[in-house]
Formats: sequence, C-alpha cells, structure tokens
Amino acid sequence: MTNVRPPNLSEPRFLRALREWMSIVGPANVLTSADRLSDYADPFTPHPMSRPFAASAVVLPGAVDEIRDVLRVARSYGVPLWPVSTGRNFAYGGAAPRLRGSVVLDLKRLNRILEVDETLAYALVEPGVTYFDLHLYLQRHGAKLWIDPAAAGWGSVVGNTLERGFGYTAYGDHAANQCGMEIMLANGELVRTGMGAIEIGRAWQLYKAGFGASYDTMFMQSNFGIVTKLGLWLMPRPDAYLVAHVKVPRETDLEAAVETLRPLKLDGTIRNHAVIEGAIRYAAGVSVRTDWYDGPGPLPDSVVDEIVKRLDIGYWTVNFALYGAPDVVDAQFAAAGRAFARLPGARLDARRYTAGMVPAGGGDGNMAGVPAMSAFRMLDWRGGAGAHVDFSPICPFTGRDALRQYWVAKARLAEYGFDYHGGFTAGDRHLHHIVATIFDRGDPNETDAAAAVQRELMSDARAEGYGVYRTHLATMDFAASQYDFNDGALLRLSETIKDALDPDGILAPGKSGIWPRVWRGKRGEI
Amino acid sequence: MTNVRPPNLSEPRFLRALREWMSIVGPANVLTSADRLSDYADPFTPHPMSRPFAASAVVLPGAVDEIRDVLRVARSYGVPLWPVSTGRNFAYGGAAPRLRGSVVLDLKRLNRILEVDETLAYALVEPGVTYFDLHLYLQRHGAKLWIDPAAAGWGSVVGNTLERGFGYTAYGDHAANQCGMEIMLANGELVRTGMGAIEIGRAWQLYKAGFGASYDTMFMQSNFGIVTKLGLWLMPRPDAYLVAHVKVPRETDLEAAVETLRPLKLDGTIRNHAVIEGAIRYAAGVSVRTDWYDGPGPLPDSVVDEIVKRLDIGYWTVNFALYGAPDVVDAQFAAAGRAFARLPGARLDARRYTAGMVPAGGGDGNMAGVPAMSAFRMLDWRGGAGAHVDFSPICPFTGRDALRQYWVAKARLAEYGFDYHGGFTAGDRHLHHIVATIFDRGDPNETDAAAAVQRELMSDARAEGYGVYRTHLATMDFAASQYDFNDGALLRLSETIKDALDPDGILAPGKSGIWPRVWRGKRGEI
Repeated sequence: MTNVRPPNLSEPRFLRALREWMSIVGPANVLTSADRLSDYADPFTPHPMSRPFAASAVVLPGAVDEIRDVLRVARSYGVPLWPVSTGRNFAYGGAAPRLRGSVVLDLKRLNRILEVDETLAYALVEPGVTYFDLHLYLQRHGAKLWIDPAAAGWGSVVGNTLERGFGYTAYGDHAANQCGMEIMLANGELVRTGMGAIEIGRAWQLYKAGFGASYDTMFMQSNFGIVTKLGLWLMPRPDAYLVAHVKVPRETDLEAAVETLRPLKLDGTIRNHAVIEGAIRYAAGVSVRTDWYDGPGPLPDSVVDEIVKRLDIGYWTVNFALYGAPDVVDAQFAAAGRAFARLPGARLDARRYTAGMVPAGGGDGNMAGVPAMSAFRMLDWRGGAGAHVDFSPICPFTGRDALRQYWVAKARLAEYGFDYHGGFTAGDRHLHHIVATIFDRGDPNETDAAAAVQRELMSDARAEGYGVYRTHLATMDFAASQYDFNDGALLRLSETIKDALDPDGILAPGKSGIWPRVWRGKRGEI
Repeated sequence: MTNVRPPNLSEPRFLRALREWMSIVGPANVLTSADRLSDYADPFTPHPMSRPFAASAVVLPGAVDEIRDVLRVARSYGVPLWPVSTGRNFAYGGAAPRLRGSVVLDLKRLNRILEVDETLAYALVEPGVTYFDLHLYLQRHGAKLWIDPAAAGWGSVVGNTLERGFGYTAYGDHAANQCGMEIMLANGELVRTGMGAIEIGRAWQLYKAGFGASYDTMFMQSNFGIVTKLGLWLMPRPDAYLVAHVKVPRETDLEAAVETLRPLKLDGTIRNHAVIEGAIRYAAGVSVRTDWYDGPGPLPDSVVDEIVKRLDIGYWTVNFALYGAPDVVDAQFAAAGRAFARLPGARLDARRYTAGMVPAGGGDGNMAGVPAMSAFRMLDWRGGAGAHVDFSPICPFTGRDALRQYWVAKARLAEYGFDYHGGFTAGDRHLHHIVATIFDRGDPNETDAAAAVQRELMSDARAEGYGVYRTHLATMDFAASQYDFNDGALLRLSETIKDALDPDGILAPGKSGIWPRVWRGKRGEI
C-alpha cells in the first residue's frame, strides 16, 4: 500500500473507509498498491514536484448506484474524491488529483453506449466510452454517422467533452454538441438536465435547455457533480467531403491566413474546425529534432526555413474540410479557393472523397471523424522520455491577435530552450491556440524548465488580455486567479455554488481553482 | 396609488421602501399609480383571475450601480423584485410578476448598444435595447451585419435571449448565439461570465465558456441574477440569399414535410430556422375568421380546405432560407429542391436576393434579419380585443412526432372552440411547436376557455413524453412540475442554488417554478 493518505485522515479511519468501499464495489475495484496507483500519477510530471498530485487510492464503481454509496462513505469520512472518466489527457495531468491524497474515482467501468439514434444523429454514453469505442460501434452497426474525435482516440467522450476539448469536423466544438446529462450530486441525488427531466421523454438528446435554468455547462471543468451519462450530437455522414490544405510560405503569413479563414468560417462556407498548423508541429509528426539540428537552444530560424523547404510544407498550413452534397461541396470549394488564392505564395491542394471512402487516421482522417493516436508522434521530437504540457490561450479570430500570441509564445519558449510546437484551431469567432512544450521527462532540467515556462506564458498572455481555456493541475489556481473581474467575482460565484451543492467538500477540491470551504486553505498550495 | 402591496409588508414599511428607491432612481422612476401600473399588468390576462399577477410598484433604474442600491433596499425590507428587460412578450405575461405584490424592476432605461464589432460580428447590449433599436443602429452605421429578430421587433434583445426566444435566420437560436453576460447577483455583486472575467480582455463576446464552470445558461429563464449586459453574435450579411416556400396540399403532409426538412437541416444545406406554418396561421395574417366562417365551434375541416384552395396556399408551408456566395446558394437550392420535389403535390417557389436587396418586413423579411410587428396581425382573427396565449412544446424532429403533437393539439383546442394557429420552427434535432390560442379578452367565456385549455394541452403533451420550453406565468409551476425525473431533482437543484445566491428571496420568486425558501409556500398558488 502507498503511504499517501487523504488529508486530515488517520490511518485507521482511512483503512475503515477503504473497507467500506470494498464492500460496495468489490475488493478488486479498490486500488491501493503503489504499483497500481502509478497509473494514476501525473504521467508527464511537468511540475518539478509531482508529489502534490499523488492519489491515496482508487475506487472503480461499476454502476451509478454504487457511486451513490461511494459518495456516502466519502462524506462520512470527509475524504476528497477526484472523479475521472478515463483520465487520459496526459498533457493536463492525466488521472492525477489536484489535492494530494484524494481518492481517484475512476469511472472507466461505466462504459456502455446506451443509445445511438441514426435518424436524429445522437448518442448517449457513459463516462468510460472512448472515441475509439464509439467509432467502432458505429462502424459495426453500419450507422451513417461520424464521431468528432479528440486528438487522441483513446480519450473518453464524456471526459473530453466536460473538459471542453475539441476536434476537427463540423462538430468540432464538443461542448456545443453536447445535449443532456445525468449527474450525481455530492449528496447522492441523481439529476437529469434539460429535457431529461421529463421521464419517459423523447427529447433529452434533442433540445438542450429544457424548461427554466439550464445547467450542463456548469458541470464542465468544475466539481459540482459526477456526470454519469452524457448525450452528444453526431454528424450525419456526408454524401461528399473534401479535405484541403493551404500552405503559406512565410512566418508572418499567419496573419493573412487567419484573416482569410475568418470570413469563410463566419459565412458558413467552411463549417469544420479548421486548423492552422505551424511548421515545427508538422515536422514533429514525420521527423525528430536531431534530423535537423543538434545544437543548444531552440531551433534557429534558418533551420525552420530549411524544414519548410525540405519537407515542402508551408510555414503555416491551413487544413480545412467541406461536407455536403457533391455540388454544394464543389461550390464551397470554389468560394474558399477564390479567397485563399489571393494569399501571396499560397499553394492549395485538396482531395474530394465520396461517402464510402475513408482517409487514413491522423490529419485527413480526423476531419472525416476517424480517431487515431498519431498525435503522440510529436513526443519523440527531443528524444528521451518524451512528454508535453500545453499552454492553451483563447485567441480572438484576427490575424493580428494570432500573430501577437505567436511572437510572444515563441520568444518566451526560446528563452527556456524550447521550440514552438503550436497551432490554431478555428471556432467561429475565436481560435484555440495550443502550444505544446515538448520535453524529456527523464531530464530534470528540461522538466523544470517546461514547468516554469507555463506560468511565464500564462502571465505574458494575461498581460495582453488573453486567458487560457484549460490548464494543467499545477496551474489551475493561477489560471482561475487570472479571471479576476471585480476582485474575482466569478470564482466567488463558483465557490458559493460549490458550498451549497457539496458542503462536505468531497468532490474534486481545487478543480479549475474551485475549492470547497473545508479545503479552501489549500488554494495556491502546490 | 394602487392598493396592491408586497406580501408580508405593512403599508408604512412599503412607503419607506418606496421613498428609499425614489432617492436612488429619482421620484419619476418609481411608479405606484394604478394608471401607470396598468402597463405592467398581464396584457392578455388569459387566466380567469389576473389579480395574482398584479405588481405593487415599478422601479426604473438608470444605471447598473443604481440596481445595486435598489437591491439593498429590497433585501432590507424583504420585497420581491420582478426584473424585466422591457416586458414585451405579451403571450407569456408581459411585464407582470409571478408573485402578486412584487415590485417590477424595469430595465428599459438601460438601453445602450455598448459595442458592435463588424469584423468579429457581435454586439454587446443592455436590457433596454430592442430588436428595432439594434437593426436601426446597424443600418445607420452601414454595418454589414444582420440581427436575428424575434417575432415582434419591439422585444428586448436581452429579454428574448434570456427567455430562449428564437428567430428566423441562421442565427435563429438566440440562446446559442449569446456570448458573455454581466450579471448582478441578489447580494449586489457584479459578475462577468466566460472571458468577461479577464479584465481588459479581448474575447468576452468571442468564446463562451472561459475557464472553469460556465454559467450563462443558468441565468436564462431563471431568477438567480439580473443580467445587465449581454453579448450576442450577429450574422455577417451574406453575398446572396434565397427565401423559399414549399406548399404541400394535405393535412397529413406535415409528416413528409418534416421528414424531408430534417436531413437538409442536419447536413447543413439549410442553416436557417425554417418554419412549417399551418394554413390557419397563414390565413390569420391576411384575413379574419368571419371571412370564412361564422358558426359555432372551431373551423370545420371543409372550411380549412376552402381557405387552402382560395388563398392558393399549402395546408402546410415550409419556409426556408439559404445564405452564402451566389454559387453556393444555387447549389444548396438545387439540393433542397431535389429533396422537396419528391413530396407528392409539393409546389416550390423561391426568390434569390443579392446583398443590397431587402425584402419587406414579415415572413421573407424576418429571414433576412428585418424586424417587424406583423406577427400581431393574427390577433384580429376572432374580432374583439384580440389576445393570445401560447402552448409551446418541444417536438422531436420527426414527422411522426410532429403529426402526433398536431392531432392532439387540434383536437383539444376544438373541444374548447378554438382553431389551431400553429407552426413548427426547426432547430437541428427538435422543432419548436408553437400553438397560439387566439381569444377575445373582452369575452370572459373565451378568456376562461383559453386559460383552461393551456393546462389540458400541457397535460396531453406530458402524457406523450413532451414538455414545454416556455410558458405563461399562470402555468410556470405546472410546467416545472412536469420536469419531474427523480421526484423533481432538477427543481431541487435549482432551489438549492436559489437559496445560496438569494437567501432573502428577493429576485423573481416563482419564475419558471423556482421559489426561494422564504416564498416556497406560494408554489402552486394562483
């Protein structure tokens, strides 16, 4: 057994709680050995001290009713629980809890696909269902529906959606395509949101709001309840689709690329989550750093130019997709082509597919709803035990903002010896700017530097009026503190609700900077 | 002065509260005379007893800071406030409060358009701004942006959005196109949601969620705070657009019309909030009932057939619009045309407009973002003091569900002597089914019948698994009680949050069936 214990709990009481949990979920579903708990450690340990995120145990319930009983025990002993769907997002902390000693509540055994409706194009799933699972299910049943995969197909559909992950197709905004939840509150009460509150109803996955206040988004990136079922909209398989790549030659072309893409997104010509990918991120998918450079510090600009030339890629590449009837796709491609042709030096290539054709996984495949694990290839970039941690500011959808965020991030990363592995994913009025800091977690200096640069990047962004949409465990309090209008009124609202819904403070203390009253003293503590 | 007082408040204390409010907003902005208060009565009084919805006074603050002071007085005297943006939705109660004696907090003096960004296509407005105001502003400034009007252009943008109203263009889902709020809580604390919590930030109206829990939808149709600013996305004026009408001849063609429309919505061919309008609703826009029929009871089927023939309309008409580059619109119209041509007896006509052209207000105009008041024409249908109250169930987007809701509503209305003035507005996976009961509010029998049939319609719907998205003051408790999964867990969640955020119970007691602890005994009381 590990020597990590829940905070403020004596060894004998902890053992009693564990025995009670074992009687609920079965002894095999309560993990306490250091060996088993290693799967629940922060996998990339970007923070110099990974200790603060150590779990004391893991409980794996097999049914919603078991969760209720697990909660009762947690309340009676005052043990904080850290619910994870499958805990696969390694860049932000994996399955590790924010508060040391929390017990991870791993929901991966709840892995049923409860419903798929091909006519109305939706699914209802449990937390343990991965993008691979759902994709495979649709294929096996011959359903003419696409999923929208997260970057890594092993991720939980529920987990990714709750963390406001995003993908690549016209359904790329996962939170926006969520419809209906079942949630267990800390007191064991089971709530269904929206139309789900109509028992034997027919619209739980069809209309989000229901009647009166609507809560789904309140349960995202927060700690107010445990989502036990989640509805999501699926994309009808289009009759035709086209995947296009626009390569622009110069570093500063980012600005014009963004300015060209925005009107096409806003007027509905391009409906997918188009991606503007930087050259180094592309290179990391097909090569390693030592292929290009072996010196100290970040890649010199001349080397990046060399990469662009030798790989015949753009300094930036705009990847977008079109979906619909063949003639509609053709007309949309003509409109997009006219716009991108005005970019000096731009090269456009595209491939049109008909409904039956499926591109390979990765880039083009993602835009056709095919999950993959190819995103992890970039981790080999620097050699050693490749790991990454992400800086993820929201960027207004203007070329000027994108270029500004890029310059600042590139310069700050260079200061710490890192390359800019970044790209922009397009919403309608914002871009998700994702900057991966890739490091060798076997190298303490690199790991320290990767951890340190995250705060610097966040401070740089905040000084320019930008905030992150998501962050690693180590910087959750810092991120929340940046959202400080009226002396932190938003966080006070969150904590008022937290105390009302979870007075014992058992659910995910510290998640997104929201601390229950009983653990509020831990804020800012690492 | 009216003789209505806030509940549990003595006359002297009420007078003291009024004096304190006068000192905050000025005496001219505190209304107490029966004459002035008549503007705040339920305008259509569909319920036989309109007394329960009488206000005791009206306070009109002129600035956000004044609201804070008004709240302080309300808390100290325990006076319930009923905030309205402009209170123009007459079918659901207008500006009248749910709890008799509440003081209406009319926000119409906060009527600034704070920002319009043409590049990123959004606006930030105060509660007093109407659709007419915003439309006019855009026209005056030559902004190439469209609003999405509510049915009646005099409505508040904020009010309609908070009530989850909807319109006609590709931005027809008003709640979905809302981005960022400023809210004053009952304790006077000012919160900005999403990216608005980043002071001097640049993305408040660009990305909804921000970091951590997201609350905007929680403040819709509820009573947890007073929304003082609201961001909304505007539609870039398209290069071309086309408005089409598909007429189908028979009553039962509703089913096939819905089945044809759904895939076109789901695959993105039709992006607007298409409307399937019934013949009587159409007729009420261009004629009155006595033109067709003068007998007792509802219009006989033969008369409806006569209306369809003589007006050369469909029994149902599908009205949709396409927006985009001219060739894209053409291709989309070809795809939609192919689909509707397969409907037996369908007649399709369409008109294509270029960017500079603006159709007249009403039907086609609404789909081009032009607000109007023509929706009120139907109130003359029965003669007398025309009024209406709406039954508004959410309908799954299938022909079978639409036809079932239609048959049940038609039959129940006929039983009470009313015609079916209905139609369906298309989301992606649901239809808003709106059924207006038109009555002469000068006729007590008709008014009684109109009130009575609402509950019957709601009960009928609930028995089939359908729930309403919105309802009149008189049926809010009833609607909330229909959302009863797990013995009303959703409403208990709402009331837990209500008590935490508004322990004095001063904000809109009873709104959407949510009662604060201090007034919970009023639930169900009319």
